[in-house]
Amino acid sequence: MIDSLISQKLRNIVGEANFKEDKEALVAYSYDATPMYQQLPDGVIFPSSTQQVSEILKVLNEHRIPVVGRGAGSNLSAGTIPVEGGVVMVMNKMNKLIEIDTDNLTATVQPGLNTKEFHMAVEKHGLFYPPDPSSMVISTLGGNIMECAGGLRGLKYGTTKDYVIGLEAVLPSGEIIRTGGKLYKDVAGYDLTKLLVGSEGTLAIITEAIVKLLPAPKYKKTMLAMYKNIHDAATSVSKIIGNRIIPATLEFIDNPTLRVVEEFNKIGLPTDMEAVLLIEQDGLDENVVNQDIDAMIRICEEQNAAEVKVASNAEEAGKLMMARRSALSTLARIKPTTILEDATVPRSKIADMVLEINRIAQKYNVPICTFGHAGDGNLHPTCATDARDHDEIHRVELAFDEIFEAAIRLGGTITGEHGVGMVKAPYLEWKVGPAGIELMKGIKRAFDPNNIMNPNKIFAKESRKRVVVQQ
Amino acid sequence: MIDSLISQKLRNIVGEANFKEDKEALVAYSYDATPMYQQLPDGVIFPSSTQQVSEILKVLNEHRIPVVGRGAGSNLSAGTIPVEGGVVMVMNKMNKLIEIDTDNLTATVQPGLNTKEFHMAVEKHGLFYPPDPSSMVISTLGGNIMECAGGLRGLKYGTTKDYVIGLEAVLPSGEIIRTGGKLYKDVAGYDLTKLLVGSEGTLAIITEAIVKLLPAPKYKKTMLAMYKNIHDAATSVSKIIGNRIIPATLEFIDNPTLRVVEEFNKIGLPTDMEAVLLIEQDGLDENVVNQDIDAMIRICEEQNAAEVKVASNAEEAGKLMMARRSALSTLARIKPTTILEDATVPRSKIADMVLEINRIAQKYNVPICTFGHAGDGNLHPTCATDARDHDEIHRVELAFDEIFEAAIRLGGTITGEHGVGMVKAPYLEWKVGPAGIELMKGIKRAFDPNNIMNPNKIFAKESRKRVVVQQ
Repeated sequence: MIDSLISQKLRNIVGEANFKEDKEALVAYSYDATPMYQQLPDGVIFPSSTQQVSEILKVLNEHRIPVVGRGAGSNLSAGTIPVEGGVVMVMNKMNKLIEIDTDNLTATVQPGLNTKEFHMAVEKHGLFYPPDPSSMVISTLGGNIMECAGGLRGLKYGTTKDYVIGLEAVLPSGEIIRTGGKLYKDVAGYDLTKLLVGSEGTLAIITEAIVKLLPAPKYKKTMLAMYKNIHDAATSVSKIIGNRIIPATLEFIDNPTLRVVEEFNKIGLPTDMEAVLLIEQDGLDENVVNQDIDAMIRICEEQNAAEVKVASNAEEAGKLMMARRSALSTLARIKPTTILEDATVPRSKIADMVLEINRIAQKYNVPICTFGHAGDGNLHPTCATDARDHDEIHRVELAFDEIFEAAIRLGGTITGEHGVGMVKAPYLEWKVGPAGIELMKGIKRAFDPNNIMNPNKIFAKESRKRVVVQQ
Repeated sequence: MIDSLISQKLRNIVGEANFKEDKEALVAYSYDATPMYQQLPDGVIFPSSTQQVSEILKVLNEHRIPVVGRGAGSNLSAGTIPVEGGVVMVMNKMNKLIEIDTDNLTATVQPGLNTKEFHMAVEKHGLFYPPDPSSMVISTLGGNIMECAGGLRGLKYGTTKDYVIGLEAVLPSGEIIRTGGKLYKDVAGYDLTKLLVGSEGTLAIITEAIVKLLPAPKYKKTMLAMYKNIHDAATSVSKIIGNRIIPATLEFIDNPTLRVVEEFNKIGLPTDMEAVLLIEQDGLDENVVNQDIDAMIRICEEQNAAEVKVASNAEEAGKLMMARRSALSTLARIKPTTILEDATVPRSKIADMVLEINRIAQKYNVPICTFGHAGDGNLHPTCATDARDHDEIHRVELAFDEIFEAAIRLGGTITGEHGVGMVKAPYLEWKVGPAGIELMKGIKRAFDPNNIMNPNKIFAKESRKRVVVQQ
């Protein structure tokens, strides 16, 4: 409960209608897309300007009230659960596309702008904003920036971090800072822009962003390579990259995922295959795209693909990509609780990692489907389970512990694109070590000495003990 | 002078020959490539392993002795001047190319490795490391990383920051941290990798780096567009980008630079032109490269280029690029002191910025040549002067003050690729504001509470007062 005098101050800043304390509002913002995490906030606030964000933060900081910034809440790391109560700050009224600057190839946006809507606006100018998280139909750019969202095009085009070049942000003190600008080169001091990207709302509230745009690729071709042996699929990934081909998308889908996706979508996916690679190449020149696709067909065949199919038209390609993008929502239909994870390894280790995941799933007797961005080593082992089945949930947790352990052992990381949030916080030390954690805490203190910004995210109260892996 | 007991400890770590206190060694490491800055250190140390770096830092930190890490010292921001004395740590014994990983398209290097040597090693594998600072023949990768070096290919390919994906670094406490990895996606906590890149030796000593590599472009074409009117040259830059063409290199050279470069190189540069654009396109497909070059020829002609010439062969192209790369060393021949600056603006403001520079040069009656990376808005206004002429040096300083002021007013920054060091420290607040400075100081404290790491760099004792610009 927020003291009524403080509530009044907040109402005075945003207007009566834009600060809510009723049960319905509190429940609506008590969860995000992450299963099994929920906590009621004490209030929900909807600012409509940078100035309002500044005034709100001054009040909250003065009274040491936690604040959780959020967009659509589509994150999968429990990054926007108000776990310490306090105020959820919803950025969806600040959703303007401020400018597309075709001379500088930049766009300036407010954080509440929807990702897909932004993609479409940019494409009208023959331009292209590559980061395409699977949640882009509902996600916001502010959320993408705070989580450093990746997506299917990360292999060739990088992630959100590679595109954000300037920010306006409000510190917990209420001070407004501007970092970077419409600048492709800027080394004036430490790179606060890149530090804020992926900081998960723990340092500041983003109120405006300048992002780089690229000329849109003019040609695109999509192919599907199908394998009787999962190892051949993984080897194909290495061989493609090893042959100096960087496709726009290089997705891996295993048999359990294939079966579920096909059952619900009926688009003719080969459910008798152990794995498929869904590959897309794009470019400014048709010949280059065709050459790359031809070379990849040859490589996949050499690696014993049972069948390789090129989408005959844009519609067929669109259906394939849509099937892949819908994997999470499809898997979510089969059981009440879907836990989608985000282990990432060097791409040369994809085959080893898939084998590890399968071994671990069997060991703990839990159903794990694996799909993901094979080209950049970012796999999403996903478990359809039931939060009410405590015994199974316990086994699922042990399995994921061991999966993260394996990822790190293979030179990988505990999260490629979903963020740490609450879900990965207990594992962060495994990746960055105690000295890394201490540095990060020091950075946090420099921005947020009173620890009001999204507290208890990234940093866990207690680190998870590492499991002993039986090889 | 370092206490003899401490000297002995340092000698014990690296061996007698690798810690020097003789006058000759101290003088050799008292300066870098920046004119007018010099200070003797108290000692010079040459570690040959991460373990040695760790032990050295423990000793220095315990005794609060400043340490300045350096490679070739080719920086232009007085970034490696041991201004507070202490120990210069020279990384040139740690110069191994540890690995080129063709499956993951990464390389692992030690900081002392020469940039050009690394380029050549990588190119043997059909791969490509884009950052190409003009100093690359002498610079080291460690120096490039600490300064976030850019270069001629920044427009299309980005700068050092875009390629470093993993680091091993030693904190002043002696603790060894590892950030990132052979991972194209990693969001496990704050991005310490990108924070360390460009941190100018003020946070940690880098002992190993993992960098991304790209498939090497197979085709390359170089052209020269010559203009009677400087404004037409600048407009051509905007029109090229506005037409969705991103050339690999898009360099601007003004008439005073042209004349000096031609005088010393005799390669037939048009000294009667007010400005030229030196443009290079590369790519995996010959047709695409040719299409882009043809389109750029048309655009330059439409913008009133007096002449457009395409290099007829690789040798001719190489000569043109070499002439551009040699601009600094050529300018350095005409007067005893050459001050090369690094103001950067949004690329749409190149024309305005060039006009401002010329106006300011005239106002203060100082000779300023301008050349630079027009495609990314990164200009190098350069003044050939004489440090002994106190009156002229004073006017040069006033002129550069006003140039930085103008860059910021046009949405730019005080340094695009050279770093802050000592030279830009007094101006940093103009760009990042007092709140930005405070955040950066907080980050510095988190890494280096005793302020031994390259002290008095980035952060000035006193900020420069802003000049009033007469429009």
